[in-house]
Amino acid sequence: MSRFLHVASVADAVAAAVRIASDPVSEELPAGRTTGRVLGEDVIAMEDIPGFDRSVVDGFAVRAGDTTGASEAIPALLQCTGRVAMGYSDAALTVTNGTCIYIPTGGVIPAGADAVIMVEHTDKAGDTVLVKRPAAHGENLLLHDEDFRRGTTIFPAGRRLSPQDAGVLAACGKTSVVVAKRPVIGIISTGNELVPVSITPGPGQIRDANASMLAAYLSEYGCIPRHYGIVADEQEAFMTVISRALTECDVVLLSGGSSKDDRDMTASVIAEKGEVLVHGVALAPGKPTIIGRIDNKPVFGLPGHPASAYVVLIVIVRPLLDRMLGLKKSPLRTTRAVLGNSVPSQRGREEYIRVRLEDGIANPVFGKSGLLNTLVVSDGLIRIPAGCEGMEKGSVVEVILW
Amino acid sequence: MSRFLHVASVADAVAAAVRIASDPVSEELPAGRTTGRVLGEDVIAMEDIPGFDRSVVDGFAVRAGDTTGASEAIPALLQCTGRVAMGYSDAALTVTNGTCIYIPTGGVIPAGADAVIMVEHTDKAGDTVLVKRPAAHGENLLLHDEDFRRGTTIFPAGRRLSPQDAGVLAACGKTSVVVAKRPVIGIISTGNELVPVSITPGPGQIRDANASMLAAYLSEYGCIPRHYGIVADEQEAFMTVISRALTECDVVLLSGGSSKDDRDMTASVIAEKGEVLVHGVALAPGKPTIIGRIDNKPVFGLPGHPASAYVVLIVIVRPLLDRMLGLKKSPLRTTRAVLGNSVPSQRGREEYIRVRLEDGIANPVFGKSGLLNTLVVSDGLIRIPAGCEGMEKGSVVEVILW
Repeated sequence: MSRFLHVASVADAVAAAVRIASDPVSEELPAGRTTGRVLGEDVIAMEDIPGFDRSVVDGFAVRAGDTTGASEAIPALLQCTGRVAMGYSDAALTVTNGTCIYIPTGGVIPAGADAVIMVEHTDKAGDTVLVKRPAAHGENLLLHDEDFRRGTTIFPAGRRLSPQDAGVLAACGKTSVVVAKRPVIGIISTGNELVPVSITPGPGQIRDANASMLAAYLSEYGCIPRHYGIVADEQEAFMTVISRALTECDVVLLSGGSSKDDRDMTASVIAEKGEVLVHGVALAPGKPTIIGRIDNKPVFGLPGHPASAYVVLIVIVRPLLDRMLGLKKSPLRTTRAVLGNSVPSQRGREEYIRVRLEDGIANPVFGKSGLLNTLVVSDGLIRIPAGCEGMEKGSVVEVILW
Repeated sequence: MSRFLHVASVADAVAAAVRIASDPVSEELPAGRTTGRVLGEDVIAMEDIPGFDRSVVDGFAVRAGDTTGASEAIPALLQCTGRVAMGYSDAALTVTNGTCIYIPTGGVIPAGADAVIMVEHTDKAGDTVLVKRPAAHGENLLLHDEDFRRGTTIFPAGRRLSPQDAGVLAACGKTSVVVAKRPVIGIISTGNELVPVSITPGPGQIRDANASMLAAYLSEYGCIPRHYGIVADEQEAFMTVISRALTECDVVLLSGGSSKDDRDMTASVIAEKGEVLVHGVALAPGKPTIIGRIDNKPVFGLPGHPASAYVVLIVIVRPLLDRMLGLKKSPLRTTRAVLGNSVPSQRGREEYIRVRLEDGIANPVFGKSGLLNTLVVSDGLIRIPAGCEGMEKGSVVEVILW
């Protein structure tokens, strides 16, 4: 009995998911609320930054030529003729041959100076500054356009903004930023065995863990999850909830019951209201995945096992979210490690093995995909391509970190 | 002129910061809002999970002994006497010798059965099931306490909750969770050269980038940043704002002006109202760091250069936050890479070099710490211990990812 006659490759499943993704929609937000969000426009420097030649140390603005050959034993002697005040540009301050001007870190380089000598390399006797080291031309200066030159692209659209980026946006005067709107993702759980988290399960029942896990992941990824609760295995009730979710959401995830009946119902409901594009993927765990489209919106049937659902989320749903967010580079965190144990794999399907990282060693965490505890004790996944029959202990692997 | 006569080692500075951190404070939140938060209590399994012996596949519940020697050529013939319904435990269903019962994934193993044979390994002729493979005792079963046994600690206090953890909490019936309260961190900027982000800087002025960067980092790290704006270099105004911040916040960060005068004022204000514990750290970038305490609350003077401030945040402030959050394991993401270029370092100070990662190679991004663009083009930091005079090209390094 083969239930997956036309199992899609992972690449085909991902391509199908990306193809039905809608385009990113932009919104403008106060810059302070955009960390983690995806830029919807290029950010261009509207002016030179820092905008003036600054000193990067506390010291004395000098003409480099005046310090040639200076040493501890034979310091160059310069007359200190003034002091740069922070936050002002004083046109009257000029460094001429044989003179210098005290300058704090960040101060405007006075006219005539072409270097700054650190205060640590000087001594002072009244107004005379003893320079004990030669300064090179341009030393300890930050040029007016050295950070960003007017007109250059600081960040391209599609970048996920980091905390450092928040600093750069501020430096550029961006008080508001155009970012991709967070897609709204509906989560509908199906399965007669499921009860809500607040209920003590009766015999044969379990709590709906997947909906919470999916919502937490989606939230972290920059989406807005919307819960539609648990729908019993009745086609009519299911239809009603899906219709509502489709009007309120950009994507709908059907967090499947684990039984074949549930999956069949999911597929038939999608087929009836829209079209099933993929039914079954050459992916382990995650084979019983359905990708479909209703009213031009993506609808996924996810496997019921938590570990399977999680892998499908990362491997197949994520690329669709990236497309909807306009993300250029997926923020998957990976690290290299050495495989601590050989893992077998079945040729013809892409396999994801949970691993625990210990001192650069990735130790496979074997366990049934129905188990939640394997997700808790592992640090990430390694991928075994469909063309492989496994990986040898000692191989260097790329670990996709949770 | 040595301005840092008693420069502290990084280890001493971190120890000082951790010592003045206050204890974590707990709050109880709906479980759905706790991803990324730090557990304030152990989470214990109050019952066995899944709670009953389940099938992990769609198939037939059998007695393994009945399938001994079964093969494609000579299948075992079993009488199918019923069907397990999802979500119920039907005491009337019993597997006896020579019989089997259809069971969906997740169904309750009926009495008498000790294995499940996958539907893929069977054929059916009326009520007779042809089993084409032997089933091992226990095969395809998930035992009632296999995921979590009642009384075991699922998560220890101090764990930062991941999206998968949200699934586990749901499976365990946790609708609310005790987590550490988010510390409130005040940010006060000083420096006459600074103007707010919305203002176009005049000659010698720059926008306050650090406050935005610090706030974004703190927010992501699970704290609540609170802005107090830019205070001019006047001791009295500064005192007033610090006093207000101390009453409203758990920690105060003084995002320094870059000049020595600003740093001196910061140190003298802290000394006047409380005590300076560390003034200057053997850290590059990040030397002009001040750690103090006023009214029993930690107060930091951060360097004015953005890259320096960011390094101090990660290296010195973060351990204090970890302590206040009760975090057992800091969520620093690291990856191993091969150093693409030799980097010199000064013995006696711990040095952090920004690097850009390309195919497993960490290429140093050299640049003045006053530059924001080096933060943007790099992927993280490598650490050169105080005892080293640099690192050779080709060394394996641990990269602290942004």
